[in-house]
Amino acid sequence: MIRVGVLGARGRVGIEVCKAVEAADDLELVAAVDKDDPIEELEGAQVVVDFTHPAVVMDNLAWCLSHGIHAVVGTTGFDTERLTRVRGLIEANPGVNVLIAPNFGIAAVLMMRFAQQAARYFDSAEIVELHHPNKADAPSGTARRTAELIAEARRKAGLGPMPDATSAELDGARGADVDGVHVHAVRLAGLIAHQEVILGGDGEILTIRHDTMNRASFTPGVLLGVRRIAETPGLTVGLEHLLDL
Amino acid sequence: MIRVGVLGARGRVGIEVCKAVEAADDLELVAAVDKDDPIEELEGAQVVVDFTHPAVVMDNLAWCLSHGIHAVVGTTGFDTERLTRVRGLIEANPGVNVLIAPNFGIAAVLMMRFAQQAARYFDSAEIVELHHPNKADAPSGTARRTAELIAEARRKAGLGPMPDATSAELDGARGADVDGVHVHAVRLAGLIAHQEVILGGDGEILTIRHDTMNRASFTPGVLLGVRRIAETPGLTVGLEHLLDL
Amino acid sequence: MIRVGVLGARGRVGIEVCKAVEAADDLELVAAVDKDDPIEELEGAQVVVDFTHPAVVMDNLAWCLSHGIHAVVGTTGFDTERLTRVRGLIEANPGVNVLIAPNFGIAAVLMMRFAQQAARYFDSAEIVELHHPNKADAPSGTARRTAELIAEARRKAGLGPMPDATSAELDGARGADVDGVHVHAVRLAGLIAHQEVILGGDGEILTIRHDTMNRASFTPGVLLGVRRIAETPGLTVGLEHLLDL
Amino acid sequence: MIRVGVLGARGRVGIEVCKAVEAADDLELVAAVDKDDPIEELEGAQVVVDFTHPAVVMDNLAWCLSHGIHAVVGTTGFDTERLTRVRGLIEANPGVNVLIAPNFGIAAVLMMRFAQQAARYFDSAEIVELHHPNKADAPSGTARRTAELIAEARRKAGLGPMPDATSAELDGARGADVDGVHVHAVRLAGLIAHQEVILGGDGEILTIRHDTMNRASFTPGVLLGVRRIAETPGLTVGLEHLLDL
Repeated sequence: MIRVGVLGARGRVGIEVCKAVEAADDLELVAAVDKDDPIEELEGAQVVVDFTHPAVVMDNLAWCLSHGIHAVVGTTGFDTERLTRVRGLIEANPGVNVLIAPNFGIAAVLMMRFAQQAARYFDSAEIVELHHPNKADAPSGTARRTAELIAEARRKAGLGPMPDATSAELDGARGADVDGVHVHAVRLAGLIAHQEVILGGDGEILTIRHDTMNRASFTPGVLLGVRRIAETPGLTVGLEHLLDL
Repeated sequence: MIRVGVLGARGRVGIEVCKAVEAADDLELVAAVDKDDPIEELEGAQVVVDFTHPAVVMDNLAWCLSHGIHAVVGTTGFDTERLTRVRGLIEANPGVNVLIAPNFGIAAVLMMRFAQQAARYFDSAEIVELHHPNKADAPSGTARRTAELIAEARRKAGLGPMPDATSAELDGARGADVDGVHVHAVRLAGLIAHQEVILGGDGEILTIRHDTMNRASFTPGVLLGVRRIAETPGLTVGLEHLLDL
Repeated sequence: MIRVGVLGARGRVGIEVCKAVEAADDLELVAAVDKDDPIEELEGAQVVVDFTHPAVVMDNLAWCLSHGIHAVVGTTGFDTERLTRVRGLIEANPGVNVLIAPNFGIAAVLMMRFAQQAARYFDSAEIVELHHPNKADAPSGTARRTAELIAEARRKAGLGPMPDATSAELDGARGADVDGVHVHAVRLAGLIAHQEVILGGDGEILTIRHDTMNRASFTPGVLLGVRRIAETPGLTVGLEHLLDL
Repeated sequence: MIRVGVLGARGRVGIEVCKAVEAADDLELVAAVDKDDPIEELEGAQVVVDFTHPAVVMDNLAWCLSHGIHAVVGTTGFDTERLTRVRGLIEANPGVNVLIAPNFGIAAVLMMRFAQQAARYFDSAEIVELHHPNKADAPSGTARRTAELIAEARRKAGLGPMPDATSAELDGARGADVDGVHVHAVRLAGLIAHQEVILGGDGEILTIRHDTMNRASFTPGVLLGVRRIAETPGLTVGLEHLLDL
C-alpha cells in the first residue's frame, strides 16, 4: 500500500487523481490538499502528486523533497533553469525522486515514442491532430513535440527531405511545417483530443493513432508514476522513461 | 450485349477501359481507336467511351452524335461554353445521349454526395485528403469540389461559420480555407489517392472515407455509364446522377 | 417558440433531453414529467418527448394524441401490432403526428442510410462495430439493422453472394453472418459506441464510420424530431425520414 | 557496394527483389538464379537473397554458407528442427550470417512489435485484419502471431482476462479467440493486406495500423536485411531484431 498525497486536489485534474487513487487497491489517499490547506497535511505521504500552478510548484517540490516524499508532477512551466533547480533539490535530498511529465496519457506517450522509433524506416511522415473547437493553439503541443522527435530521428538516420512534388498549393493546404514535418490541425465539434501519425514508404503505410475519449484519460499514467517513482532514481522528465520501451 | 468503342484506347486509362469492357459479359469491345486510327472504325458501336484530349474531344463528340452513338466522356476541359455546344449537338441529334464526368470513381462520387447530404446536420466539417507525393496540386480537385458542396449545403440550411477558437496558429496548421471549409492535404510515399470527410456535432462524429487502391478504380464507374447512357436522355454532367441516390 | 414537454424526465436520457430543450433558443420546456407526476402537467405542450418504458408508452401516446399534442418517441418495444394501434390513434385524432425512432443519433442514422444507398455499387460489404465492454449483445442492434439494409439493397440490385475464398477459418474469425453480411463486434475498454461500414470493389473502398463520443449524442436528433413533427403528417417510423435524403 | 545474388529470381517475389536491388545505389545485382540455373553463378555474391521453396532452401543455405556468402531468407517452412540445422551450418562456417524472416514488411513488423510493447498498459486489446477476398486462411498468420505476442505480454505483466460482458452473442460476432485475444478477419474486394491493433484503457485508445498498398511492400525490408546481415552475427530469426527498437 503506497500512501499518496495530492496537491491541487480540488482542481479539475486533481479531483480525477483523488478519485483514481481512492479506487486503486494498492494506493491509499492520505491527503487531498488545495491552495487554502496547510501543506503539512501531506506529511504522512510517500508520494505526492502535484497538479497545481507554475507559481507555486517549486515551493511544493522543495517542501516534499525536504520531507523525503517522492513527487509526481503534471504542473507545466519547467524550463531548463527550473529543471536544474530540481536537480539541485534532489542532490540535497538523496534517495528522493521526482517525475515531471508534460503528458500523462499513456496512449499519447506511446504514440510519440513509436513514431520516433519508426520514423527512420519510412520515406515520409506527417501528423494529423484533431481536437474540439475550443482549443486555442494549432497545432497542439503534443503534435509539435511529435514532429520534432520524428525530425530528429530522420536526421540521425541520415534521411533527407521527404518527397513532395507540390507545385500549386492553396495557402495552408500542406499544413504547418515543424522542423520539416508537415502537421495538420483539425478542429471539430464532437471531438475531444486525437492524433494520427502516418508513415509511408514503398507500398506500405504505418499509422499510429491516439484517441482521448474523456478527461480522465491521464489518470492511468499518473498512477503508473506513483507506483514506480520510488524505484526510479533522481529526476525523470517524461512518462516514456517509465514504460520499459 | 452492348457494342462499345473506345477512343484513346492506347492511353493509360483507355487500356484499362478496353480490358474492363472485354472482361464484362454484357459488353462487347467492337473498336479500340487511338489518334492514328480512322475514327470510322467506331461505326458499329452503340456507345463510345472517350478518354482523349481537350483538343480533340469536341470533334470526337460531333462525329459520335452525328452517327447516333451515345458517348461516355472522361476527357477534361468542359467549361460552360463547351457544355452549351454539347447541348446543341444533342438537340441536333435527338435520341443520342452524352455523359461527361470529371470523376468515374464510384466510391469518390458517393463520398462527395453523402458529404453534401450530411453537411447540414453537423456543426463542423473538415476534409483531409491524402495522396502520393508526386501530385502537383494541393488540395486535390476532388477535395476542393467536396468543400464547395459542403459549403453550399450549409448556406442553404442557414448554418453560420463553424466553431473555431484557434487564436495561436502556426502558419498553415489549420489547412486551406475553401469557401469556409478547412481542407488538409497529406502527401506521403506509399499512398495512392484517399479522402476523408469528417463531420461533427454534439457528441457524435460521422466520417466518410474513400480509398483508391489502384489505377483501375475508375473502370466500374465507366462501365456503369456505358450500361445506363442509352436510357439517360440528353446531357448528364457527373456520375452521381446515374447512381439513383 | 415550440412548447415542449418531456415524459421520463428524470431518467438518464430524459435528463439530457430536458437540458437540450432548455438550451435551445427556439424551444421552451413547459413540463418535465416522470412516473410519480400527474400527466396533466403536459397540457400546455405542443410536442411531447417520450423516453419512458414499454409498459406505459401506449397510455402516454393515447393521452397525448387525445389532447392534440404531437409525440416524439424513443421508448422501445414497438412491434407491428403496436404500430397498428398507434395508426388507429392517429386516425382518431386527425392532425396530430407521431415520430417513433429506435435511434436518434443523426450520425448513426446517416451511416445506415448511406450504407444502404451505396451497397448496390460494391462487390463486398462488411461491418465492424466497436463498443465499451459492458455491452451485453454482440453485434449491436444498429449493426444488425445495417446488415439487413445492406442485404436487402444487394438483393434488389440482383447482386449474388460476396466473394470469399476462406477455406481455413479459426472459429469465429469471419464474424457473424447477418443475412449474408459479415458483422464483427469489438469490445474494448475506453470505447463508447462506434460503427464502421466498409464497402469494396475494383480497386476502391468506401468507408462510412460513426462515433458516439458521449451520452448526449442523441439530443440533436430528438430536437430535430421536435422541430419537424408538426409538419410531418401521420406516423413516421425512423429518424431517417426527416432527414431529406 | 554490396554484391547481391538472388535465388528464386524469376518467382513473383524474386522479380521484385531483383528490381529493387538494381534500383539501389549501394547494391549490385551479380546473379539472378532460378531453378534451372547453376547455383555456381552466385559465387561472386557477398549476400544471397532466397525466396525459393522449402524443398530446396536447406541445400541453398548449405551451399551459400560453405562459400562464405551471407543469406537473407524469405522462404517459409523453418521449424525448430530446421533452425537447429541452420545453426549447425553457421557453426561450421564461422563469420557467415543468416537472416530468416517470415515477414519482410517493415510496417507490419513494427506494428507487431509496438503492439507487443504497448499491450501491458491497456485493459483491452483486439485485432482487426482486413484482406482481399482470395485469401484462404482467416485470420492471417500475421494476426495470429500478433495475438500471441499480445497475450504473452499480458501474461508477463500479470494482467488477467480482458473485460467483456457479452451475454447474448450471435455466433462468431466476437471473432476468433487466439490465446484470449479476439481477432476479426474482414475479406473485401478492393483490399490488399491490412491490420489494425486496437488497445484501450481508461478513456484512451491506441491504434496501430499497417496497410500494404502493393506487392512490392516487402522489398525495403529485404534490402534492409541485405545491408545489415554482414554485421549481424550468427542466425537471426525475424526482421524486428534488425530494427534497433
